[in-house]
Amino acid sequence: MTQTPAHPPGFALPDDALPGLAAELVGEHLRRDAAEPMRPHRSPDELLATLPIAIDGGALPWSEAFALLQQVLAATPSTTSRRFFNQLFGGRDGVAILGELGAVLANSPMHTFKASGVQVLVERAVLRRMGELAGMPDGDGMIAPGGSLSNFAAMILARNHALPESRERGLPGARAVIYASAAAHYSVAKAAGLAGLGRGAVRSVPADAAGRMRAECLGPMIDEDRATGGVPVMIVATAGTTVQGAFDPLPAIADVAERTGVWLHVDAAYGGSVLVSPRHRGLLEGCGRADSLTWDAHKLLTVPLTCSALLTRRPGLCAQAFDEPASYLFQDDALLDPGRGSLQCARHNDALKLWLAWKHHGDDGMAARIDRLFTLAAHLAARVESHPGLRLCRPPASINVCFEVLGTSSRELCRALWERNVAQIGHAVVDGREVVRWVLVDPAHTTEEIDAVLDELLAVARGLASGA
Amino acid sequence: MTQTPAHPPGFALPDDALPGLAAELVGEHLRRDAAEPMRPHRSPDELLATLPIAIDGGALPWSEAFALLQQVLAATPSTTSRRFFNQLFGGRDGVAILGELGAVLANSPMHTFKASGVQVLVERAVLRRMGELAGMPDGDGMIAPGGSLSNFAAMILARNHALPESRERGLPGARAVIYASAAAHYSVAKAAGLAGLGRGAVRSVPADAAGRMRAECLGPMIDEDRATGGVPVMIVATAGTTVQGAFDPLPAIADVAERTGVWLHVDAAYGGSVLVSPRHRGLLEGCGRADSLTWDAHKLLTVPLTCSALLTRRPGLCAQAFDEPASYLFQDDALLDPGRGSLQCARHNDALKLWLAWKHHGDDGMAARIDRLFTLAAHLAARVESHPGLRLCRPPASINVCFEVLGTSSRELCRALWERNVAQIGHAVVDGREVVRWVLVDPAHTTEEIDAVLDELLAVARGLASGA
Repeated sequence: MTQTPAHPPGFALPDDALPGLAAELVGEHLRRDAAEPMRPHRSPDELLATLPIAIDGGALPWSEAFALLQQVLAATPSTTSRRFFNQLFGGRDGVAILGELGAVLANSPMHTFKASGVQVLVERAVLRRMGELAGMPDGDGMIAPGGSLSNFAAMILARNHALPESRERGLPGARAVIYASAAAHYSVAKAAGLAGLGRGAVRSVPADAAGRMRAECLGPMIDEDRATGGVPVMIVATAGTTVQGAFDPLPAIADVAERTGVWLHVDAAYGGSVLVSPRHRGLLEGCGRADSLTWDAHKLLTVPLTCSALLTRRPGLCAQAFDEPASYLFQDDALLDPGRGSLQCARHNDALKLWLAWKHHGDDGMAARIDRLFTLAAHLAARVESHPGLRLCRPPASINVCFEVLGTSSRELCRALWERNVAQIGHAVVDGREVVRWVLVDPAHTTEEIDAVLDELLAVARGLASGA
Repeated sequence: MTQTPAHPPGFALPDDALPGLAAELVGEHLRRDAAEPMRPHRSPDELLATLPIAIDGGALPWSEAFALLQQVLAATPSTTSRRFFNQLFGGRDGVAILGELGAVLANSPMHTFKASGVQVLVERAVLRRMGELAGMPDGDGMIAPGGSLSNFAAMILARNHALPESRERGLPGARAVIYASAAAHYSVAKAAGLAGLGRGAVRSVPADAAGRMRAECLGPMIDEDRATGGVPVMIVATAGTTVQGAFDPLPAIADVAERTGVWLHVDAAYGGSVLVSPRHRGLLEGCGRADSLTWDAHKLLTVPLTCSALLTRRPGLCAQAFDEPASYLFQDDALLDPGRGSLQCARHNDALKLWLAWKHHGDDGMAARIDRLFTLAAHLAARVESHPGLRLCRPPASINVCFEVLGTSSRELCRALWERNVAQIGHAVVDGREVVRWVLVDPAHTTEEIDAVLDELLAVARGLASGA
C-alpha cells in the first residue's frame, strides 16, 4: 500500500462515490457471510503481520482506504453468519441494518429535540411499546449503551431510592446490600463497584440447579440484614441467565419485594425480548410488578449492537436521577430533551433500528421470530438427548442448550471448533462441569443447518479423542 | 400505508436487495443535505400528526418500511449539512461513514478477541495513537460511549485511587472533594452523583472571564479541604470548555496536582482533537502530566457519534477498575479481551471509523482539518468584530465564536433562525449576558458560506427588531 501526500481538507471522497461504496460494502459482507461463514482463524500476531493495523501517520487515497476496510472486514470474525452461536446475539435483519444506517447518516445526538427532532419521538415510541409489554405502561425509561449500563442505571435509581441523599451528598457509609442470584450477570457486581456501594454489597441468593433464584431464601436474607443494621438497596432478578437461559420466579420475588419495600429490578437484558411472544411471555410473568427492567433488543431481536432499554414502572425517575442544569444545551424544548434523563450527553440513536424492524415485522412477526428460537433450541436439545455420546445438562429453559460430549473437554472442543473454522460456540460451567453452551439466537437458522453443525462438532470431538 | 399480514421468519428483505437500498439511503441523504440543509421546522405535534410514529403492531412490507424510514429521515434535523453550528460536532466525513457502516455490518461485540478478532487490534491501534499524542504512550485506555461516560470512568479511577477500598467495600462516608472550574462540563457533577461521591462533592474553582480555571486558587482549596478532614479525590481540568472553547492552564494545574498528589483528569472531550495539529496542540501543553484524559473524536474529528476515548498515563488501570470474573465469556485469550477493561460488556465498535479516517487523511490531513476550523473561527470572529451592530465577547480561544447582535435577544434570534429554517446555532451565557454561541466544527465549510449565514442571521435579527 503506497502512501500519498497529505491532501487538503475537502479532497475527501467525492459525495457521489459514497452510495456505490456503501452498496459494495454491504454486498461484499453478505457474499462473505454466505461463502465463508467462518473467517479464517488467525492469531493476533498473524493479523498484525499481514494487515497494516498501526496508525503510522501516512495517508491513503480513499480507494485504498476502502480496500483496507474490506481487508479488515474479511479478517473479522462474523457474528452475523450461520456459524455464530457464541454469544447472546447473532444473525442479521436487513431492515434493522437499514435503520441503523439511517441513524448513522442522520447522526442525531439524541440529547435535544432541537438537534434530533423526530428521532426523539421514535425513541419514545420504542420505549413506550417496550414499557407496555413489560407491564410498565405509565413509567418512563431510557436507552443506554448496553445491558451492563442499563443495569448500572437501575442500581443508581435503587440507590437513590433507598439512600435519598446519596446523589447530592454521597454515600453515608451505610452497609448497603444488593440481592442477586448466584447465576446473575457480572454487571451487577460491577455496577455496585461503580455506584459506590462496593462489590461486596452483592449478596448471592442461592439458585437451584437450573440457575433460578430460590425466592424462599430471599426474604430471610433481607430480614437478617435489616436486623443487623444493613440497608437493603435492591433485588436483582434475572430473566434469562447467561449460561442456562433460566428465568427467576418473578411472582415469588415480587412478593418479597413488596413485603420488604426493597427496589426490585429485573435484569431481562437477555430474556426481555420473550415479551413479544404471546406463547412464551409467561416466562416473565410478574415483571410489571418490578420497579425497573433492563431489556436488550440487540440480543434476541436481531438488531445491531447495541439497543438496550431501561424501563421503570413509575414516571420521572430517570430525569430525577440524571438531569443536570446545562443552559447552553437544554433550552428550547427542555421537557422533550431526552438528554435530561439519560446517562449520556450526545449519543448514537440506538432506537431507530428497532423501531423500523418492529414496523416491518409487526407484533406477529416479532413473536414468530422469538418462537422460532425456542423451536430451534428444542430441536437441538432433542438431538443431543437422543445421541448416546452426548449428555444434555437439562431441558433448556429457553434457548441455551448446554451439553457435554462424553469423554471430550468442552473447552478444548470449543477452541478446536473455532480454530478449525467450524463454528463459534462457547463453553461454560454447569453443575460444576464444563459444558458446551450453544445459544440459538438467529431465527433464520433451519433445523438442517443446526443438524449439520452438530454433526461437524461430533466429528471434531472424535478427532480430538483420537488425538487428531 | 396498508398493513400486511405477519410474515414468517425468513420472509424478510431479500439479501440481494440490501446493497441497493443502502446506496439509495446514502444517496438520498446526501441529496437532501445539499438541497435542503435545514429540514422544515416542525413541532412534535405536527410530526406525530403527519408520521406514523407509534408502534401499533401492524406489519409493513420491507418496501414500505424503507419508504417510512426515508420519510422519517427527511423530517430529521440535519447535523451533517452546512447549516448546523449548534453543537460541538457537525459535518460529515465519507470515509468515516464507510468505516462506521463496516462496524455495523461486522457487529463485533468488542468484549472478546474470539468474537471480534482484528477489530480488537484496530481499537488498540486507535488508543495507542491517541495516547502517544496525549503524552501518555505507556498508558492504556478504553473507548466509552460518549464523553460523559469517559469522564465518569475517569472519576471511578480517581475515586479508587484516593479511596482504595471503595470498589470492594463501598464508600466510607468520607467527605470527598472534586475540583473543577465553574466552566466545566455538567458531566462532572453528574458523574459525582453516579459514583457515590455526591454532586455536592464538586467544588467550583473560580474561572477567569475567558472561562479558564484560575490555577492559583486550586492549591489553597485543596490544602484547606485536607486541613478540615476532606479527601481530595480529583482535579478536573477542562481542555475546551463548552461555551467559550477555553483551555485551562494545564502546566500550572499539573504543578498543583503533583505537589498535592491529587489525581488530575483532563476533560478534553472537546479539545483533545487539537492534539493532531502541530500548530495548535500547544493549547494542551502539559496534558501528558495528567493521570487521565477524555478525548471525543466525534467532535472535531468529524466521525459519526460516538467515538470517545479515556486515556490513562499508567497501564493496567482500566482492568483494575472494571474487570469482573466471567468464565463463560473471558476464556480463551483473556488478556486480549477488551471487555475486561471496559465500562460495558458487548458494545458497538466505535473505533473503526476513526481508524479508517486516520488511515485516509494521515497525520497531515488530520492536522489540516483542525487548522481549518481555527481559520474559520478566526474569520467569523473578524467579521463580527468589524460589524458595528455586533459585539464579539472576546477573541475566540479556539473555535467557538460568542457574540451579541446589539438590541436583539440571542435566545429569540437563535430560535427564529431555527424556526425559519436558516441555521441551527445555539445560545449561551457569557459574562452574565446571553450570547449567540456559534461553533465552527465542519472543515468542509468555506468562508463564503460562513459569511452568507452571518448575513442571513443579521437579516433575521433586523426582522425581529422591526417586529417582523
